[in-house]
Amino acid sequence: MAGSTLGTIFRITTWGESHGKAVGVVIDGCPAGLSLSEEDIQPFLNRRKPGQSIYSTPRSEEDAVELLSGTFEGKTTGTPISMIVYNKSQQSRDYSQIASCYRPGHADYTFDAKYGFRDYRGGGRSSGRETTARVAAGAVAVKILQQLGITFTTFTRSIGDIEIDDTRFDKEEIFRNKLYMPDAEAAARAGDYILEMTKAHDSVGGCVEARITGVPAGLGDTVFEKLDANLAKAIMSIGAVKCVEIGDGANVSRMTGSEDNDAFFFDEQGNLTKASNHAGGILGGMSDGSEIRLRAAFKATPSILKMQHTVNKDNENIEISIKGRHDPVIVPRAVVVVEAMAAITLLDSLLLNMSATMDGIHKFYAKD
Amino acid sequence: MAGSTLGTIFRITTWGESHGKAVGVVIDGCPAGLSLSEEDIQPFLNRRKPGQSIYSTPRSEEDAVELLSGTFEGKTTGTPISMIVYNKSQQSRDYSQIASCYRPGHADYTFDAKYGFRDYRGGGRSSGRETTARVAAGAVAVKILQQLGITFTTFTRSIGDIEIDDTRFDKEEIFRNKLYMPDAEAAARAGDYILEMTKAHDSVGGCVEARITGVPAGLGDTVFEKLDANLAKAIMSIGAVKCVEIGDGANVSRMTGSEDNDAFFFDEQGNLTKASNHAGGILGGMSDGSEIRLRAAFKATPSILKMQHTVNKDNENIEISIKGRHDPVIVPRAVVVVEAMAAITLLDSLLLNMSATMDGIHKFYAKD
Amino acid sequence: MAGSTLGTIFRITTWGESHGKAVGVVIDGCPAGLSLSEEDIQPFLNRRKPGQSIYSTPRSEEDAVELLSGTFEGKTTGTPISMIVYNKSQQSRDYSQIASCYRPGHADYTFDAKYGFRDYRGGGRSSGRETTARVAAGAVAVKILQQLGITFTTFTRSIGDIEIDDTRFDKEEIFRNKLYMPDAEAAARAGDYILEMTKAHDSVGGCVEARITGVPAGLGDTVFEKLDANLAKAIMSIGAVKCVEIGDGANVSRMTGSEDNDAFFFDEQGNLTKASNHAGGILGGMSDGSEIRLRAAFKATPSILKMQHTVNKDNENIEISIKGRHDPVIVPRAVVVVEAMAAITLLDSLLLNMSATMDGIHKFYAKD
Amino acid sequence: MAGSTLGTIFRITTWGESHGKAVGVVIDGCPAGLSLSEEDIQPFLNRRKPGQSIYSTPRSEEDAVELLSGTFEGKTTGTPISMIVYNKSQQSRDYSQIASCYRPGHADYTFDAKYGFRDYRGGGRSSGRETTARVAAGAVAVKILQQLGITFTTFTRSIGDIEIDDTRFDKEEIFRNKLYMPDAEAAARAGDYILEMTKAHDSVGGCVEARITGVPAGLGDTVFEKLDANLAKAIMSIGAVKCVEIGDGANVSRMTGSEDNDAFFFDEQGNLTKASNHAGGILGGMSDGSEIRLRAAFKATPSILKMQHTVNKDNENIEISIKGRHDPVIVPRAVVVVEAMAAITLLDSLLLNMSATMDGIHKFYAKD
Repeated sequence: MAGSTLGTIFRITTWGESHGKAVGVVIDGCPAGLSLSEEDIQPFLNRRKPGQSIYSTPRSEEDAVELLSGTFEGKTTGTPISMIVYNKSQQSRDYSQIASCYRPGHADYTFDAKYGFRDYRGGGRSSGRETTARVAAGAVAVKILQQLGITFTTFTRSIGDIEIDDTRFDKEEIFRNKLYMPDAEAAARAGDYILEMTKAHDSVGGCVEARITGVPAGLGDTVFEKLDANLAKAIMSIGAVKCVEIGDGANVSRMTGSEDNDAFFFDEQGNLTKASNHAGGILGGMSDGSEIRLRAAFKATPSILKMQHTVNKDNENIEISIKGRHDPVIVPRAVVVVEAMAAITLLDSLLLNMSATMDGIHKFYAKD
Repeated sequence: MAGSTLGTIFRITTWGESHGKAVGVVIDGCPAGLSLSEEDIQPFLNRRKPGQSIYSTPRSEEDAVELLSGTFEGKTTGTPISMIVYNKSQQSRDYSQIASCYRPGHADYTFDAKYGFRDYRGGGRSSGRETTARVAAGAVAVKILQQLGITFTTFTRSIGDIEIDDTRFDKEEIFRNKLYMPDAEAAARAGDYILEMTKAHDSVGGCVEARITGVPAGLGDTVFEKLDANLAKAIMSIGAVKCVEIGDGANVSRMTGSEDNDAFFFDEQGNLTKASNHAGGILGGMSDGSEIRLRAAFKATPSILKMQHTVNKDNENIEISIKGRHDPVIVPRAVVVVEAMAAITLLDSLLLNMSATMDGIHKFYAKD
Repeated sequence: MAGSTLGTIFRITTWGESHGKAVGVVIDGCPAGLSLSEEDIQPFLNRRKPGQSIYSTPRSEEDAVELLSGTFEGKTTGTPISMIVYNKSQQSRDYSQIASCYRPGHADYTFDAKYGFRDYRGGGRSSGRETTARVAAGAVAVKILQQLGITFTTFTRSIGDIEIDDTRFDKEEIFRNKLYMPDAEAAARAGDYILEMTKAHDSVGGCVEARITGVPAGLGDTVFEKLDANLAKAIMSIGAVKCVEIGDGANVSRMTGSEDNDAFFFDEQGNLTKASNHAGGILGGMSDGSEIRLRAAFKATPSILKMQHTVNKDNENIEISIKGRHDPVIVPRAVVVVEAMAAITLLDSLLLNMSATMDGIHKFYAKD
Repeated sequence: MAGSTLGTIFRITTWGESHGKAVGVVIDGCPAGLSLSEEDIQPFLNRRKPGQSIYSTPRSEEDAVELLSGTFEGKTTGTPISMIVYNKSQQSRDYSQIASCYRPGHADYTFDAKYGFRDYRGGGRSSGRETTARVAAGAVAVKILQQLGITFTTFTRSIGDIEIDDTRFDKEEIFRNKLYMPDAEAAARAGDYILEMTKAHDSVGGCVEARITGVPAGLGDTVFEKLDANLAKAIMSIGAVKCVEIGDGANVSRMTGSEDNDAFFFDEQGNLTKASNHAGGILGGMSDGSEIRLRAAFKATPSILKMQHTVNKDNENIEISIKGRHDPVIVPRAVVVVEAMAAITLLDSLLLNMSATMDGIHKFYAKD
């Protein structure tokens, strides 16, 4: 099933498996004239790559991206941008155990159910490694959006029960700790919790939040292509995400209209603004000009050393302990994946929005 | 922006505004040979229509659906099915107040920001009335899925703070109370709460849950077209939804791997099954054959009598009290909308899945 | 199969059968702020409707279009525009003969092969009546393009062997004769030929040409979404078309490079222009600013009184004479259909083109 | 503009320029379980690659394809198949002349008009080199179709005025001469003509025909997704094609209904068949089970040594002679490109067709 393409104007197609030769992405529809090189992409991949800290897998993949097409003399030409990241560290032996059984919490069983067989060397296409390609594309989207004054602040909101305290929110702190948390104290406690669970041969979940400022009002659409609907799809398409929230999210079900509605007012400079932002920057499916806020809940890494019940190919009920170099928590490395998916979605909406009105079209095509 | 079409094989396009002549839907790609008439559609529309109880707007729209194309001698022909529901109760005077200001929590401002002006007679295209068309299409999807053994149980999980008690879950009760709650006691308390808030000129939110059984394993895809990603988009595209959860949803961020993983085992009949269903029936983006569970959080109706701050066309900060026949809570009427969107998404995945393997294709095109 | 939607930004969905209640179209993605009413649409439908002359079927359908949504106070709002044309003249008895056999040259057999049965009252969805909906949408596209200085001259190039003489080309003549030919002499001879063939209980084919001026250079894309590729699809999707040509079309296969290449030069005003236009205004899939020229070859109406061999439901070889009110030639009524399909395709390319460069995006989103 | 993706279920995305590092394709939606290796692809690329004969460019690119993803143990897994062909022979100096002017008949001008600048090293994305990627994808499509009994016979129908004589049609001959013509005598004359024109520093056009047998009846759709409409788009998207014909093509405009209609009859074995095939195997947009026939007219290679008028960057009218290793005729190498595009289109229709009827769906999902 053709499920590896996303977007209408800014459209990405990813390919590759965890234990194949490489993973890659083709960006089609990137506007011409953007200065772009590997140096723009690599920092984003570095935020995602394994081996960054004691909290992540000791696999040290280089994850060096190579641009294969779509630029000329340092600028995008409007043609497809193909990027590739070779898999350096495919130690298939690590995964030989899993060929004959279904790992709980993984896609092993559903892959077999759909396709009749599977690439049993790790997660294959369902591996988190696929997100390398998303992040490479996201780096391009973020660069374009930044030029239009749109900025992203994406971070780990919680690990297990340990949530950041918004009164201690420190944007600079995000890149100072290995968990990408904007609250040093919460990060310290979360680090201890991860190590504790690792010792217990278990793994932990957590929550990622993205805040996006500078978004023009009016992006998105009123029915199926609502900006929040597309963000929900993009974020939920990240493996391990089981919940997507916009603005106050799940809490809105417990609020009254008078609590939840954001009052409009003109500030002293005469700018239209909102007294609060429970809506998270999206009203009726369209951006309202205020900060966009979204959250994604990630489940714990399903690969754990702890003994689990499952079945094998010989139709037997068995127990397994999953060995290998697995992250005890996927959340810190997923922060940049959430940012990438949000940016890709937002950019596509921004480009689609250009043809919304006759006035805009007349201005665009006016002869000087 | 073209945002009123959803789906790849089973594809719906809705049209119409709250105060225009009619709303409607075109279903393209419905398989031929399904027996279908207005009688299949109307019961679904009746679950959505206003005026069902003291908890909803007293507007009593008839919402009678008419089939305009796509069937012959009582069966679908494979051609587009066009359905129309005329707007009987467009009393534009009720809405004259809102032409000159932006209602908090509504799309008035974002519509103007995007399109330069708006149909100020009610919510226009952003009105909940648009969901009439979705429900008509959903009725067709549900009918097809039922023939394949797939069943839906969709209900109000909570109103404000009042949540059903799963130990009292009674499927039959859902259609016995006006709030579509499977717990009579919770429904009674929720009813009281709604009336109380109505008296306070306020409104309330809530949560809808859908449970889907009989889904074959393997529907959905591994990357962007994950079944849960498409469900998230479809559900988040319903106005007022701010959170979508699959399985244990937001809670997974607080669980460990050993708590969250669902163990596989062969039961006494030798069927592969799972010891728990924290995943909500979807693993790696594909259905795993167990019950699919999803939840949507709805915000409170933004139209309230209570005084609110906002701005008007003359760039003044003003206060408004929104009059008119508004639902104090949208949740009960939204239950069938969630069911419709889930069914449309699931059916599309099911049809796309038919070409997943060479074996399936060979069997399909084999000459007898 | 979902095959009734066309376009990415300006997207149309048609529905309805020849003998159902109505045919219609939903235009999604029409820019907001276009003044639009039924008066803009009806003249286009009148060019297509039957009963215009002795050369077309005596059925006199009114084909009055009704706008159901998408406008407010005479302007488009950016939301879906739904238009309906009721079928007034469904005399099903005219078609009872064809229920039991496959008419040669029609879709009767292929419909049964695909869907297992068919609406046997006339062509059903395959009827030329479906093009009513295309023409209604095309009228909107033409109106938008005209505002941008793009004009269409569409006409009958040939009927049978009788082709217009380009030296006698008279644009005004197109609307003076019933065959929409820009050459009165050719029209007269073609009229005679049609009457002769009608007497012989036969039918005739012909060719339609469209010339489009004022198209900005750069519309279309370099690979699959070439402007000519999309025009070819749009035009070939009109029933009875078996050949689409761009510029010199089939003749290019017999030309040398030096004959076919159009030399560039700067004219006396310093404008870049071409010394010839063999390319028909499209180079490398993108418009080059010169006149776009395309031609479509239509086969003769397959419904003829003349006796033909075919088969019936009882698996017998039989002979049939197809009675009913059929056009002896479809070409004159198809002229506006070609124009509509070309306009819809061109407009979509024009809107997609707005996001081609970073410069264009910066200018569009610049804050004043 | 995102224009490098084609197809709904079997979906290909190509990337790469003539003088970049590589060209490639991602096939998304290929069914799982197809045995596939580079050996299946390479023979198709060899039919397209330059340097095969004195009639084509002496550039001898190796065009070795490498499979990067999507297979495991020699079989497709259902995940994206990424294929890459490195550009070995990028001698940029050959093309330095063209950086400062617009070559007639090329996309140089339109590229600049759309994107503001271009990769001036050869045709860039508009180069015929991009078709390498299409052919690689086409090889996969052909392999799948062959397993279902569908076969392709694709050949050069004409070069300049020299057309094959159908009475001398010899399928085996196609691969015996370097022009891929099924008529040795025509091939000999065409070869002489090409050499003559080469000496005259000119180039020639020609026509490619494809015949496809074994196609089940019912593929395609009745409105915009007609099989012939999609074939027209796919074929017209090949650079240099200016005309696409189905069946009798342009000739139908000169035929009467009684000449053009194909009579149905039951043959002696009781099989439904047609007495003729003017329709080229497609009726009402759907395959009718008889041989599909289509033709594409290619213009002459625009790059010629002969002096031509054009303009340069300094806004001067100049004359150029285009040097470099250009094919005097593109047609023979384009034969396999036409086959690839037809196969990709046909396969997508075949997969989409699986969900056409409730009966088919019930059979597919029936539990044994």
